[in-house]
Amino acid sequence: MPILQPIVNIAELLYRKGITDVVVSPGSRSAPLTLAVARHPHLRVRVMADERSAGFVALGMAMQSRRPVAVICTSGSAVYNLAPAVVEAFFGQVPLLLLTADRPHEWLYQQDGQTINQVGIFGSHVKRSYDLPADYTHPDTRWFIDRCVNEAVNLSQWHPAGPVHINVPLREPFYPGSDEPFLAEPVRVIDTCPTELTLPTDTWRDLMTEWEQSERTLIAVGQIPYDPALLAVLRKLSDDMGIPVVGEIVSQIARNEVFITRSDTFLSGLDEQTGQSLQPTLLLTIGNSFLTRNLKTFLRQFPAHRHWHIQPATDRINDSLQSLTKLIPADPLSFLEKLYSDLDYQRFLRGDDDDEPHAFLHRWQTLDRQATRLIEKTLRPASGQLTDWSAVQVILEHLPEQSLLHLANSMPVRYANLCGLAEEKQIRVSANRGVSGIDGCLSTAVGAALMSDKLVTLLIGDVAFFYDRNALWSAPVPPNLRIVLLNNDSGHIFRMIDGPGRQPELETYFETPHGYTAQNTADDAKLVYTHCDALDTLTTLLPDFFQTSPSARLLEITTDKRVNQDQFVAYKMQIRNLQANKAN
Amino acid sequence: MPILQPIVNIAELLYRKGITDVVVSPGSRSAPLTLAVARHPHLRVRVMADERSAGFVALGMAMQSRRPVAVICTSGSAVYNLAPAVVEAFFGQVPLLLLTADRPHEWLYQQDGQTINQVGIFGSHVKRSYDLPADYTHPDTRWFIDRCVNEAVNLSQWHPAGPVHINVPLREPFYPGSDEPFLAEPVRVIDTCPTELTLPTDTWRDLMTEWEQSERTLIAVGQIPYDPALLAVLRKLSDDMGIPVVGEIVSQIARNEVFITRSDTFLSGLDEQTGQSLQPTLLLTIGNSFLTRNLKTFLRQFPAHRHWHIQPATDRINDSLQSLTKLIPADPLSFLEKLYSDLDYQRFLRGDDDDEPHAFLHRWQTLDRQATRLIEKTLRPASGQLTDWSAVQVILEHLPEQSLLHLANSMPVRYANLCGLAEEKQIRVSANRGVSGIDGCLSTAVGAALMSDKLVTLLIGDVAFFYDRNALWSAPVPPNLRIVLLNNDSGHIFRMIDGPGRQPELETYFETPHGYTAQNTADDAKLVYTHCDALDTLTTLLPDFFQTSPSARLLEITTDKRVNQDQFVAYKMQIRNLQANKAN
Repeated sequence: MPILQPIVNIAELLYRKGITDVVVSPGSRSAPLTLAVARHPHLRVRVMADERSAGFVALGMAMQSRRPVAVICTSGSAVYNLAPAVVEAFFGQVPLLLLTADRPHEWLYQQDGQTINQVGIFGSHVKRSYDLPADYTHPDTRWFIDRCVNEAVNLSQWHPAGPVHINVPLREPFYPGSDEPFLAEPVRVIDTCPTELTLPTDTWRDLMTEWEQSERTLIAVGQIPYDPALLAVLRKLSDDMGIPVVGEIVSQIARNEVFITRSDTFLSGLDEQTGQSLQPTLLLTIGNSFLTRNLKTFLRQFPAHRHWHIQPATDRINDSLQSLTKLIPADPLSFLEKLYSDLDYQRFLRGDDDDEPHAFLHRWQTLDRQATRLIEKTLRPASGQLTDWSAVQVILEHLPEQSLLHLANSMPVRYANLCGLAEEKQIRVSANRGVSGIDGCLSTAVGAALMSDKLVTLLIGDVAFFYDRNALWSAPVPPNLRIVLLNNDSGHIFRMIDGPGRQPELETYFETPHGYTAQNTADDAKLVYTHCDALDTLTTLLPDFFQTSPSARLLEITTDKRVNQDQFVAYKMQIRNLQANKAN
Repeated sequence: MPILQPIVNIAELLYRKGITDVVVSPGSRSAPLTLAVARHPHLRVRVMADERSAGFVALGMAMQSRRPVAVICTSGSAVYNLAPAVVEAFFGQVPLLLLTADRPHEWLYQQDGQTINQVGIFGSHVKRSYDLPADYTHPDTRWFIDRCVNEAVNLSQWHPAGPVHINVPLREPFYPGSDEPFLAEPVRVIDTCPTELTLPTDTWRDLMTEWEQSERTLIAVGQIPYDPALLAVLRKLSDDMGIPVVGEIVSQIARNEVFITRSDTFLSGLDEQTGQSLQPTLLLTIGNSFLTRNLKTFLRQFPAHRHWHIQPATDRINDSLQSLTKLIPADPLSFLEKLYSDLDYQRFLRGDDDDEPHAFLHRWQTLDRQATRLIEKTLRPASGQLTDWSAVQVILEHLPEQSLLHLANSMPVRYANLCGLAEEKQIRVSANRGVSGIDGCLSTAVGAALMSDKLVTLLIGDVAFFYDRNALWSAPVPPNLRIVLLNNDSGHIFRMIDGPGRQPELETYFETPHGYTAQNTADDAKLVYTHCDALDTLTTLLPDFFQTSPSARLLEITTDKRVNQDQFVAYKMQIRNLQANKAN
């Protein structure tokens, strides 16, 4: 038996615990782990040279599959290059299993290469960190290794899902001799039975009483994976009970006749009277973070009397709206379905505070429709000028049905939210909103495309694109990836938000124009490259762009940051005019 | 006074404490820090969009200036992108001051964007981590901020130098109003007097007694900054006292008639008898890590009876050669100069164990010359074929005098060490040997070039180059940078070392060929690009390549990894033959 047999067996244990995909970065210290997964008959292994990209590719894969993806890297600074993806996975609640090769600990501080303090290196940004032994002669050490891997895979998936770290100190020789097969042996799997969260009857009755006492109930949906059943029950609650359902593009709340998707527009610069007319007495939230400041500010400035947050158990109080009164440990879908079936439908026809059925809902919906017209006005100037925003609008309109949309951080996710998606398209939306960095958006989209047979469209700005271009370097880029790059030659957001735009340092220290186009990057990565700088051309070329093809495609849309800014200023002005008219 | 005045004052404090250079990555949370340094009349500020590159650029600057360089980044995963450079600075003992903007701590775990647990985020890889208050109304808070910054800058420079982290939680508004100048006020500097390490007379006498009792003394020099005075005293010790001085390219030990620079070649596969004939009774080491395994293995297999390591005080025992008996807290130059002046010169003419003056030295020097001939034979095949190694040899021969050479990790630093440098050229050598990662070598060289008016030549392989190409993205690349890229389309080292070369997984999981050339990257970054694939062309184009020019230049040398491998195999074979002949 090879000395490293307990390490080789990890591959089989990962597979038996339900892991199917591994992302590996090359290294010598990590070779035993790499060879173990490479020689496993069922594991799919992808190689990425840049560990920062590798981490985000694994994140993208796990976001799609909602199962843990393993990451293997060598010792030293390689490990720290995973950290940006690890922290996004932690706050975004995405299951990852990080297997980091290490020198045996006695070599620390001995000026040995690629030797750093890897035990607990990700601090509080992993759910747990294990450190395996470097010697396996005593049987207890092999028991310990098996137990750690079993526990780590379980833990990565339990709510809230997240990254788990296993540090693996390894001694030479790392490579099997010619007579050693280096294949996994049968392993023991420690399963955990699934459980369901159930609220006791008394508790449920109390909640229903509180619910029925509430004159105006509002449901606000934070970032959450796409789930048609959840959307269906939300729609029924809104239609039948007159409850406004407010959501954003990252919460999969698409545009239909019912849902409230324009809150970022109509909650901007709200006067006191309108604010009060929209203020709920009971606020029910599900999902993770909200995208826009306007929605969060409204819910803080006009707080609900009661605020329930529904999520599977956690030991932390997330009170980001500063109004929370009750944490309800439940699966949102089950909770809402039971709520809908138990509610007294008759009560909701009796009318609410205004004595008109569904008056509260209609107030929200009226403002939402007004906002839609305002945005249409903003986006349809006589000139037909190409801006980032108008480009995003056209792209979203042309997205193939049932495809995936990954939204990069900074402006693209905000423009996309302002535009919204049509519900009938059934687009699944993802975005790195755990930490909301720009650092791994391209790699995450590559990971999503690797894990899906659907078309994956990435909307990304130029700074995020070039920052993360190593996503395209190592492996063949999956052919179902469509990159739409909005290139305005700058960190455009700094011009749009209040503050930096007023500073003389704007260009040099914030926007940092670089003069790059993506043509060379696309050529190097063998992507089919298309360039566009006019709105009518964009409309013409999109049907072909979204066709299936043997290679991934990149569409670079060049816009002028000053024209973008003018459009945004005009939009803000229209909102101000609208609010002023209302006040008069 | 602006609310943020205590933060603005940090810029002035940095300057008064001797910091002249700051590397900034754009961000909104970090804007107060950015504006403070940008508006300071004397600080030089460079902007890099990718924080990973920013960290390594600062590292390269600080390696050259041997003074701390400040780094400013925004909150969230941006901070983790600095970590690879931070850990290299920690183990490489390079002073950095990391100023990371943060959300005020009450926003942690509240699903707020770019909010992670930044307090102590770099763990044991910084010398200390400070966390500034977010509110400055109480005067004690301002006292605390000033004191932290004073202490942090001091600490980063004290031996061993290293990175120090100051976390800076900041509240909105981040940007000054139009009536706020946002300029630093006068600040209080807390100085520390310099001290000198002195050994008590008794201690010194005991050391001299031990020294004189030693029959065979060897000095081995690890990585250390270039210092002509140190080289001079080492030469005198060798010339006059018959002490072999063994060094490597990263320890600035260049080729002359005296120093031992070929140890990697002649210590390979050593027989017992030759090993014993080279074994010192007293080993004296200075500097940090050694590059080659052969030197370390020899010193472990044939350990000295006594092993002294001379370095300014530290609380850690670095016993990487497993033979240490005495740590001498002293500055190596002062120690060696006093040693030389106090030694009994007469004793060294009396001869050592072989009763021939300097016999021990001559044994080392004879093997060194033999190794030189072996390498010349390896590098001068009849065909004149271009390989990575032969290219490095030609490059090093053509380097301009008194220029800087940065050696990227993996194969380039090893080839360069095998070739060695001629002493009369007075080349200063640097390399990221703290952790020896490939991740920031290009950025580090950019930093070196920014800090020097000399020509800086980087020798780098293709994986390290493309991994870190964001080094070239943001700022204008300094015109005194010369990048020599050895492109063999793979992580070539895996083919060269024993182990992976025998595995069927070699190409896919270790070498990871990518098919990239650097032409597009060079064009994007506006570098003057030259390509070369023949040895005679290389010799012809180098004089022009090393001329000063208004733009940085990149020379891409294409080699075949199999031809490289054949040459290396032939070299190993020659060593084996030589050792076999000796044994017979």
